[in-house]
Amino acid sequence: MKKHVIIGAGILGASAAYHLARAGEAVTIIDRADPGQATQAAAGIICPWISQRRNKAWYALVKAGAAYYPSLIKELEAEGEHETGYKRVGALSLHTDPKKLDELVKRAEKRKLDAPEIGKITRLSAQEVQELFPPISEKIEGVHISGAARVDGAALKDALLRSATRHGAEMVSGDAVLVLDKDQKVVIRVNDAAYHADSIVVTAGAWADNVLASLNIKFNVQAQKAQILHLELPEQQTDHWPVVIPQGDQYLLAFEEGRIVAGATHEDNVGFDQRVTASGSLELLSKALHHAPGLADASVQNVKVGFRPFTPNFLPVIGRLPGYEHILVANGLGATGLTMGPYLGSELAKMAIDLETEIDLSLYSLSHAMKKDASTHP
Amino acid sequence: MKKHVIIGAGILGASAAYHLARAGEAVTIIDRADPGQATQAAAGIICPWISQRRNKAWYALVKAGAAYYPSLIKELEAEGEHETGYKRVGALSLHTDPKKLDELVKRAEKRKLDAPEIGKITRLSAQEVQELFPPISEKIEGVHISGAARVDGAALKDALLRSATRHGAEMVSGDAVLVLDKDQKVVIRVNDAAYHADSIVVTAGAWADNVLASLNIKFNVQAQKAQILHLELPEQQTDHWPVVIPQGDQYLLAFEEGRIVAGATHEDNVGFDQRVTASGSLELLSKALHHAPGLADASVQNVKVGFRPFTPNFLPVIGRLPGYEHILVANGLGATGLTMGPYLGSELAKMAIDLETEIDLSLYSLSHAMKKDASTHP
Amino acid sequence: MKKHVIIGAGILGASAAYHLARAGEAVTIIDRADPGQATQAAAGIICPWISQRRNKAWYALVKAGAAYYPSLIKELEAEGEHETGYKRVGALSLHTDPKKLDELVKRAEKRKLDAPEIGKITRLSAQEVQELFPPISEKIEGVHISGAARVDGAALKDALLRSATRHGAEMVSGDAVLVLDKDQKVVIRVNDAAYHADSIVVTAGAWADNVLASLNIKFNVQAQKAQILHLELPEQQTDHWPVVIPQGDQYLLAFEEGRIVAGATHEDNVGFDQRVTASGSLELLSKALHHAPGLADASVQNVKVGFRPFTPNFLPVIGRLPGYEHILVANGLGATGLTMGPYLGSELAKMAIDLETEIDLSLYSLSHAMKKDASTHP
Amino acid sequence: MKKHVIIGAGILGASAAYHLARAGEAVTIIDRADPGQATQAAAGIICPWISQRRNKAWYALVKAGAAYYPSLIKELEAEGEHETGYKRVGALSLHTDPKKLDELVKRAEKRKLDAPEIGKITRLSAQEVQELFPPISEKIEGVHISGAARVDGAALKDALLRSATRHGAEMVSGDAVLVLDKDQKVVIRVNDAAYHADSIVVTAGAWADNVLASLNIKFNVQAQKAQILHLELPEQQTDHWPVVIPQGDQYLLAFEEGRIVAGATHEDNVGFDQRVTASGSLELLSKALHHAPGLADASVQNVKVGFRPFTPNFLPVIGRLPGYEHILVANGLGATGLTMGPYLGSELAKMAIDLETEIDLSLYSLSHAMKKDASTHP
Repeated sequence: MKKHVIIGAGILGASAAYHLARAGEAVTIIDRADPGQATQAAAGIICPWISQRRNKAWYALVKAGAAYYPSLIKELEAEGEHETGYKRVGALSLHTDPKKLDELVKRAEKRKLDAPEIGKITRLSAQEVQELFPPISEKIEGVHISGAARVDGAALKDALLRSATRHGAEMVSGDAVLVLDKDQKVVIRVNDAAYHADSIVVTAGAWADNVLASLNIKFNVQAQKAQILHLELPEQQTDHWPVVIPQGDQYLLAFEEGRIVAGATHEDNVGFDQRVTASGSLELLSKALHHAPGLADASVQNVKVGFRPFTPNFLPVIGRLPGYEHILVANGLGATGLTMGPYLGSELAKMAIDLETEIDLSLYSLSHAMKKDASTHP
Repeated sequence: MKKHVIIGAGILGASAAYHLARAGEAVTIIDRADPGQATQAAAGIICPWISQRRNKAWYALVKAGAAYYPSLIKELEAEGEHETGYKRVGALSLHTDPKKLDELVKRAEKRKLDAPEIGKITRLSAQEVQELFPPISEKIEGVHISGAARVDGAALKDALLRSATRHGAEMVSGDAVLVLDKDQKVVIRVNDAAYHADSIVVTAGAWADNVLASLNIKFNVQAQKAQILHLELPEQQTDHWPVVIPQGDQYLLAFEEGRIVAGATHEDNVGFDQRVTASGSLELLSKALHHAPGLADASVQNVKVGFRPFTPNFLPVIGRLPGYEHILVANGLGATGLTMGPYLGSELAKMAIDLETEIDLSLYSLSHAMKKDASTHP
Repeated sequence: MKKHVIIGAGILGASAAYHLARAGEAVTIIDRADPGQATQAAAGIICPWISQRRNKAWYALVKAGAAYYPSLIKELEAEGEHETGYKRVGALSLHTDPKKLDELVKRAEKRKLDAPEIGKITRLSAQEVQELFPPISEKIEGVHISGAARVDGAALKDALLRSATRHGAEMVSGDAVLVLDKDQKVVIRVNDAAYHADSIVVTAGAWADNVLASLNIKFNVQAQKAQILHLELPEQQTDHWPVVIPQGDQYLLAFEEGRIVAGATHEDNVGFDQRVTASGSLELLSKALHHAPGLADASVQNVKVGFRPFTPNFLPVIGRLPGYEHILVANGLGATGLTMGPYLGSELAKMAIDLETEIDLSLYSLSHAMKKDASTHP
Repeated sequence: MKKHVIIGAGILGASAAYHLARAGEAVTIIDRADPGQATQAAAGIICPWISQRRNKAWYALVKAGAAYYPSLIKELEAEGEHETGYKRVGALSLHTDPKKLDELVKRAEKRKLDAPEIGKITRLSAQEVQELFPPISEKIEGVHISGAARVDGAALKDALLRSATRHGAEMVSGDAVLVLDKDQKVVIRVNDAAYHADSIVVTAGAWADNVLASLNIKFNVQAQKAQILHLELPEQQTDHWPVVIPQGDQYLLAFEEGRIVAGATHEDNVGFDQRVTASGSLELLSKALHHAPGLADASVQNVKVGFRPFTPNFLPVIGRLPGYEHILVANGLGATGLTMGPYLGSELAKMAIDLETEIDLSLYSLSHAMKKDASTHP
């Protein structure tokens, strides 16, 4: 049994911890519970198959991530975890141009060949669209993907961590600092204590740069701020509504008891500003009401804030840290963290106990997120 | 000494109570503290002189109302009331068309002839505008009116009620119902008790219809919902910023410590719906950021809701209720309630003790808000 | 088909509307959506069998109310209403004196004879208690009642109203005033319209006095303010936890995702004060942490406020209004409104269409809540 | 002109930045805006003279800190900073034992000899106490200290930073990491950039351990969590009420418009947990209502959270970091940060430009907060 320290308990770290603890390994998870943790704020759509992004390395991950969910949820439920935040409600993709929808159907059918989990693909009339998600404008047609799901990031993460803890993992709340001791060995300092570990898994998302900086490593991950709007349609039963993927970059999710989530902004270069801003709220509201005019009378509950981690080439990275082979890093999951996270976490767990991974690690080399050194400020 | 019962403790009722109590009368104020009381939510601008509304009866009231403030505030301060919510910070009127601003200057100068309280009228360049209220776009010119003020409705109302109480007025929390007893005399029922009074002052704003309905009187006042946005510009000193009156129907107010208020929606026919809605928030944010792009990065604090009372001809009404000469009613102050309210309240107080009023009551006859009977629902 | 107007859409009015609409009657529901509606704030326990209250008339109602739930929920689910807020999670009754628990078991077993819905009655050790509801102090023993349930008042009410609407009921938002027209017939005035009805059902809870006052009827219902604390135990799965009934007047309810509700204060003579007060919060927190020390580290989410209606003899009343035989009134459900409400609503529906009721109406006569006249204020 | 980088913009860093920028130095302030910054949450009492703590080194700092305020505020106002959050409202010290109050008067009079800023010291009867702060129980006597003041930490910090910025200081939002470059020189890494500086001022409060950890220095500062309760007494004018220092460790502060602040908890070993907890709220409410029963009916607005930094001997430390003479550190101001902070910041500024300090640095040596190394976790 080896000792593993995981730094960062978002979806990625929680999944890695869960898999390692279930495998009988000694696991310590350190998290500083920063407000704005991407997973905590996220309400995600699991529907990667209809994306137009052509990058194959990226698609391999989201596809595997989506396919991985059902077995993971089953496993968690078998352990008594019933509040996983996951529900297969189907997705509704909308477009004003019917041709685009026909193309989408074709694209989806093609992808279904090796992704049967996509489920049934159905072209819908404007009226059918509105029946499935009543607040939508009556003039827009769509495509329904029955295999798509919604997931509440915080609920899933909590289920993974509860299970990991049951399997012996230890949770430590604090700020982990990596330091070299006199023998040039990496020590993990947190609060008053110092930890040594056989493997160190750095899954610190948008904050990873900071974790690695003390080793004088410049890790190039950028925080992208997401503001996410929570509405409530009073007196409506909405638990079964599908997720909605309109044109553009916004999505709509329904939860039980009239709760609707509209997300999200994509704000670069604002640092870790936790504030709900006027411009962010304006963008969320104007897009939501454009796509679903029937939300006009919904009440505004609140706006949550999270920070997605991005690498320079917008691809996830995963691998061993050059010069520190026992430090594993995964990062850059961007806007599809909930789709990929549980799966990539299981891959990280394999690496930590020297098992072979399913994914081709060469496609996601850490080198894409490394710089020689920081630019010097004049 | 006569006994007066005042129903409704908004700005109008609070002012009437204050004046009656100071005059040594016996005063009971009944208020059911409905959420959405217009005064409670309101943050007002006292700057009636530049309005383009041509109705003379209306202008007489707002002009007198604005002129009345300084002496009222002085009087309150002399009594130890320093938190009146009133501050003479000046107003900034904006327009994209410089000609309209020149006209505004002329109009204001003309009105200054018999309204010297308007203060100094200054034409401002775009740069001067922005210096006075930095978040405003740099391309817009304006006019500055030094005599304008801002007032926090809840604070002023509280100051008036505190003072009334000090002068012996009694506050009762509850729902007043007017009932005819066996002798056909009006009894005021509230909670477990029944009150008789020499004069009954009904200042129940948007709820007045309900108060008078049990006398089988159809009082035609409509509630107009106002949602009001509260922003915060972190780390800014904003207490001295002028109120801003852009084109259109929105205004911007600054308070201390970066607090900015942008108001308000004008929503008819939604009843007393207290909810902050998606469409209301969208309207407030889009107008505020249009006028003052520098607010984009302000944080959203909350949205308040109030209900303005309107009469069919959009004019205030004040008078004695036909058939019930000891029942005084004033209502319909609409969007200028904070400007007129304290003044009209003092006029109501005069009527209650049979003094002559300053205003020409014939212009504001209750008959404008009376119907023979309610329409019958099929 | 007769026309029915229901005034007040709490649990009682919603249930009456549901049953009438399902029976094919014409139904209009008028509600002014007052904040503090008891049903809206309530999170209830359905477990009447262990009460020590000896009043048989009262017990008959709560027993029938609890027994009525399963069939109602089944009926609603058959109509597609899956978010009813009801879940049979069992109840845990606690006492420091083991003898009292043994007595409770006896009392419950005796009551089970004609109330098999009580389910299994199990005496629990302190350890078993804590296993079922971990935050409880480890020193207290208990009794488990498997047939008990929790219900979210707002969710159930919404399900009933959605269903009523589907069956043709009309919802009107506004303040209903009962007025006599020239022919001394009762007209229901709301907003701009006037309604006539074959039956008028007044289910206005703590506000009913006000509805009836304009008919010069003194209806003696008192509002009792309830403040209800919402906590969150982060990262816990709590959906299946039983409701907890400790000694004293507080209860603890768990919902999904760590949400714990502790209620409630019983505040008389404070009117309809919507505020969360320091003393109310203090009482809720000190009792909750006394009973369940493990909640010490829970986070405080918010405090809700509702107003329970009580009659002078603490018994519900139901019947026809003297002098106005077509006006049906039910009220005074007090702290067990969620237990009795759906059942009593179905009884009201029967009365409105002249069917015989199950309950003995003579036990719940309106006369218990009627006064000759209001006391006169000096 | 030298280049200074200040890490941490709490009251200490803001004051240092202000003084350096006013002196014409080049200043960069880096702050990561962690929620829970002690200054941001703090509402402070400036009244050090009556403390029974006998440590002379500590008293020298709080005494100097309090004496320094009037000139600082004057200076800020001269620059146009009118929202400094400071107001000299006097303090009310309470005790159930009149002898203790007499002793307090003696102690205060003695201290007044070299601290005339203490103002007038007045023994008060229970009635006089209640007149000054009405919610207090009528049975307790007190002592009034006219020179005491209240200060709003966030407002004062903002005023200092605004002024510093006006004098050319640059604000950077981000997480500063100290790294050694190849030449073993300290580089400050933040976001994408690297800074060099002639002096580095580390005023990172409870987070300083983390800033220094990457230099492999174990800095022994502990975070003590403070929860602070905000109440509102509706319709009261409270701006002039004195601060209240009852027996025990709680205080009460009044601000304008009925706002009352009761603080604070002292929670050790909970890390940086931002949550408002049930036990924390309970402690705050029970103490506040014990001291001031008249707050029972106040409404609960919210609870804020901050983290005070403490050193092992509970004394502030200030000095040059051993081995890195150009790194200045001050920390450990504990519960009197607002009293000492502005003054100590001015001393730090002197050190940074090699001026002599007023205080005897040997009393506050950094060595009190240094450990050889972190304990190793088994």
